[in-house]
Amino acid sequence: MKVSELGEFGLIALLAKMVSRSQNKQWSSYQQLILGIGDDAAAFHGEDSTQLLTTDSLFQDVHFTLKTTPWYELGWKALAINLSDIAAMGGVPQYALVSLTLLENTEVADVESLYQGMLEIAQQFEVAIIGGDTNCAPLVSITITVLGKAKDQRGQILTRSAAKPGDKIAVTGYLGAAAAGLEMLTNELQFDSETTAQLRDAFLRPYPRVAEGQLLVERGVKTAIDISDGLISDLNHICESSQVGARVEIDRVPIFPVVKANFGKRALELALSGGEDYELLFTASAGVIAEVRETASCPITVIGEIVAEKIGKVTLVDSMGKPFPLRKIGWEHFKA
Amino acid sequence: MKVSELGEFGLIALLAKMVSRSQNKQWSSYQQLILGIGDDAAAFHGEDSTQLLTTDSLFQDVHFTLKTTPWYELGWKALAINLSDIAAMGGVPQYALVSLTLLENTEVADVESLYQGMLEIAQQFEVAIIGGDTNCAPLVSITITVLGKAKDQRGQILTRSAAKPGDKIAVTGYLGAAAAGLEMLTNELQFDSETTAQLRDAFLRPYPRVAEGQLLVERGVKTAIDISDGLISDLNHICESSQVGARVEIDRVPIFPVVKANFGKRALELALSGGEDYELLFTASAGVIAEVRETASCPITVIGEIVAEKIGKVTLVDSMGKPFPLRKIGWEHFKA
Repeated sequence: MKVSELGEFGLIALLAKMVSRSQNKQWSSYQQLILGIGDDAAAFHGEDSTQLLTTDSLFQDVHFTLKTTPWYELGWKALAINLSDIAAMGGVPQYALVSLTLLENTEVADVESLYQGMLEIAQQFEVAIIGGDTNCAPLVSITITVLGKAKDQRGQILTRSAAKPGDKIAVTGYLGAAAAGLEMLTNELQFDSETTAQLRDAFLRPYPRVAEGQLLVERGVKTAIDISDGLISDLNHICESSQVGARVEIDRVPIFPVVKANFGKRALELALSGGEDYELLFTASAGVIAEVRETASCPITVIGEIVAEKIGKVTLVDSMGKPFPLRKIGWEHFKA
Repeated sequence: MKVSELGEFGLIALLAKMVSRSQNKQWSSYQQLILGIGDDAAAFHGEDSTQLLTTDSLFQDVHFTLKTTPWYELGWKALAINLSDIAAMGGVPQYALVSLTLLENTEVADVESLYQGMLEIAQQFEVAIIGGDTNCAPLVSITITVLGKAKDQRGQILTRSAAKPGDKIAVTGYLGAAAAGLEMLTNELQFDSETTAQLRDAFLRPYPRVAEGQLLVERGVKTAIDISDGLISDLNHICESSQVGARVEIDRVPIFPVVKANFGKRALELALSGGEDYELLFTASAGVIAEVRETASCPITVIGEIVAEKIGKVTLVDSMGKPFPLRKIGWEHFKA
């Protein structure tokens, strides 16, 4: 069987099973482990706090093209998506390792731009870049690993596996702008300059919800994921990990205003399955969510609830409660 | 300027300078930092111990070809070279993150082999594989990040920057076999089965000197590096970091016996600049090295000494003390 037939998530499940079978739970590393493969970041006990470790890559012509992604933004985004994984655990990012591959004829000035973008966002979150690896290869790629820790003294973190029937489902901010930005850049769509800037930034300069992730932990939320694959796809991950179902009212999904205004019927699709918005998707009781909303500096929108039926599945309903066909649910890297 | 003109080490120096300028030493992450860019691994204070973080990549047709590297060995080697970085710090490896790219038509069975090889060596060192990232790309690559800690309660580690004039220079094991193995596989050289097996394993299944690294710390050694680029190239790194010179007596260099027997005049060159042997190169007083030799389970050979002259440079001398021409000193990724 080819990996394209098995699919990304199938492959990850297979490899996770191999790892789990071969490794001995008596090793001291395992005895300190809280969460291994299968969440936004791995988590393990440090001496006094919970540590978080995550890695994410951007490969040329897989995740980005240099035609639409300037080097500065490539550096920004490569670190941002890793910080977003730490945000989805409610953690504080601390250290980053950067592994780069470049072409032999890549301009040194372009590499400097990439680092400027990366250092800009590193400064905003006080993340120290402490090492990495640089190689020449037939394509440009950047793989970053971030080590962080739980903010909380008790080591409380957000996982994908703590959702319970009755929980409300909520998201930070608005959805669909990153995917709309990608479409704009790829198809050279023309908008007014303000719209262009908003969509461009949404796709190229995602701002990880690190403060919001920490706020969620503080307010007692237990379940979260960042929206990288797309709302439905990422909610599916929560459903599978938590062994619950989810019902989303499509009319409640907070579509990015400029997307709603400019992308007609496709706006909803972009918001549901576009991905790369790097907003946080979380579940908690209505009361806890109300408390989060009071303190959060971004909109918090309830979009549905966790149910005990249809375990591992997301159901969409319209404002009348009628099922809405789920044609397209995010994307998988291995399925074209 | 192109990155190929600047060279790998030039580029790393440039990026390290950018990082150092832009990051604020007041950040809590920086206040805990012991070693950033420029050693085998980064090091920082944990609550009770020194933590180590390192990453290393293998890219298809840059670091390996699937023609000569079976999938099982690719998995083994990708983790081994990272464990070797922890070994070079005298540390204990604990956790690994694995980022893979595969082709769409890669066989799932091949990916399973890769993981079997990686899990085999993970078991030997009790390293827990706790996460990563899997993507489809136009080439196969594997980037692994390993988190470890100092064995020593006082947090003592081995660095590249502690060599002092008067120190003796020593290496573990024998050199040249990995490069000879690569030549054998690439040029389909024929040897007897025992020789073939030894050279093949040296190149495809390096065994990181984790126990020896810990022994070095225990015995009071302060300076070490693992030999990945080649003896001279890696000794150069020590000289530059420590601001000292080095004199190596070529007749003392422990050439892998089978290489000496089969590669004629080229044996010395393979041992001096072949690289990928993943032995430890370290410096210490003659007395400390003698103590290390008593307990080590592998040969420990003194090959020269650290000097105050020719700072940042390695000088080769023959048994008469006469300079030996330094034509080829390892390899840099960006210089063809």
